[in-house]
Amino acid sequence: MSEQDPQATAASHATGADAPEGAQPQADAAAHAQALADLAGIRRSIDNFDAALIHILAERFRCTQRVGELKAAHGLPATDRDRELRQVERLRELARESDLDPEFAEKFLGFVIAEVINHHKRIAGESS
Amino acid sequence: MSEQDPQATAASHATGADAPEGAQPQADAAAHAQALADLAGIRRSIDNFDAALIHILAERFRCTQRVGELKAAHGLPATDRDRELRQVERLRELARESDLDPEFAEKFLGFVIAEVINHHKRIAGESS
Repeated sequence: MSEQDPQATAASHATGADAPEGAQPQADAAAHAQALADLAGIRRSIDNFDAALIHILAERFRCTQRVGELKAAHGLPATDRDRELRQVERLRELARESDLDPEFAEKFLGFVIAEVINHHKRIAGESS
Repeated sequence: MSEQDPQATAASHATGADAPEGAQPQADAAAHAQALADLAGIRRSIDNFDAALIHILAERFRCTQRVGELKAAHGLPATDRDRELRQVERLRELARESDLDPEFAEKFLGFVIAEVINHHKRIAGESS
C-alpha cells in the first residue's frame, strides 16, 4: 500500500502512542493475511461463475447447432439480421439492469455469434 | 428443403399413389410450419441462456472489481500469471467435459480478462 488509509491512521493514533513495539507490524500482517483470505474467497466465486458460464455456453452451442440443422433441412435463411438486432437491444437492456457495461454485452454477443458462424462453417466444410 | 428425406418419401409411397392432388404441398407446408415452431422454441432457450450469461458476467465483474480494490488496498500484485494458467487449464477441461471446443473456452476467458483489465484501467484513470 503506497498511501496510508487516513481512517486506519486515525484509529492507530486513538489507541495511543504507548502501543507495544511490534504491534503495528503485527496488525499489518493480520490485515495482509485477511486480504489474502478474502482474495481466495472471491476467486472461488469467480471459478464457480466461470464453470457456470462454460456450461451455459456449451448448452447454447447445442441450441445453435440444432438451429443450423433445422435451417439447412428446411431451406431457411442462414442469418436473420432483425433477430440479431433484437438480441443486441435486449442484452444491452439486461446489462444496464444488472450494472454491466452495455457495450461489453454487445461485444460479448458478437464474440459468441462469430463462434457460431465458425461452427457452422466447420460443419459445412466437414460435410462437403 | 432441397433434398427429400428418404423416410418421408418411403412413407408417402406406402400410403399409395392415389393420394389426393395437393397432399404433398400441404405436407410440405405443415413440415415448414413445424420447423418454424421448433426454431422459435430453440430461440426462446437461447434467449434464456443469454440472459443467464449476462447476469453471471455482471456478478463476475462485481467480483473482479472487489479483487482490484483488495489488491490496490493491500499492495498485492495486479496480475497473477500462475492463477491465469490454472484458470485456462481448468476451463479447457470443463469445456472438454461439456463437449465445447476447448480453444473457444480459452478465447472466451481471454476475452473476459481483457475486459477486466479495461475496467481496472478505467477505474485507475477516473481516480487519477
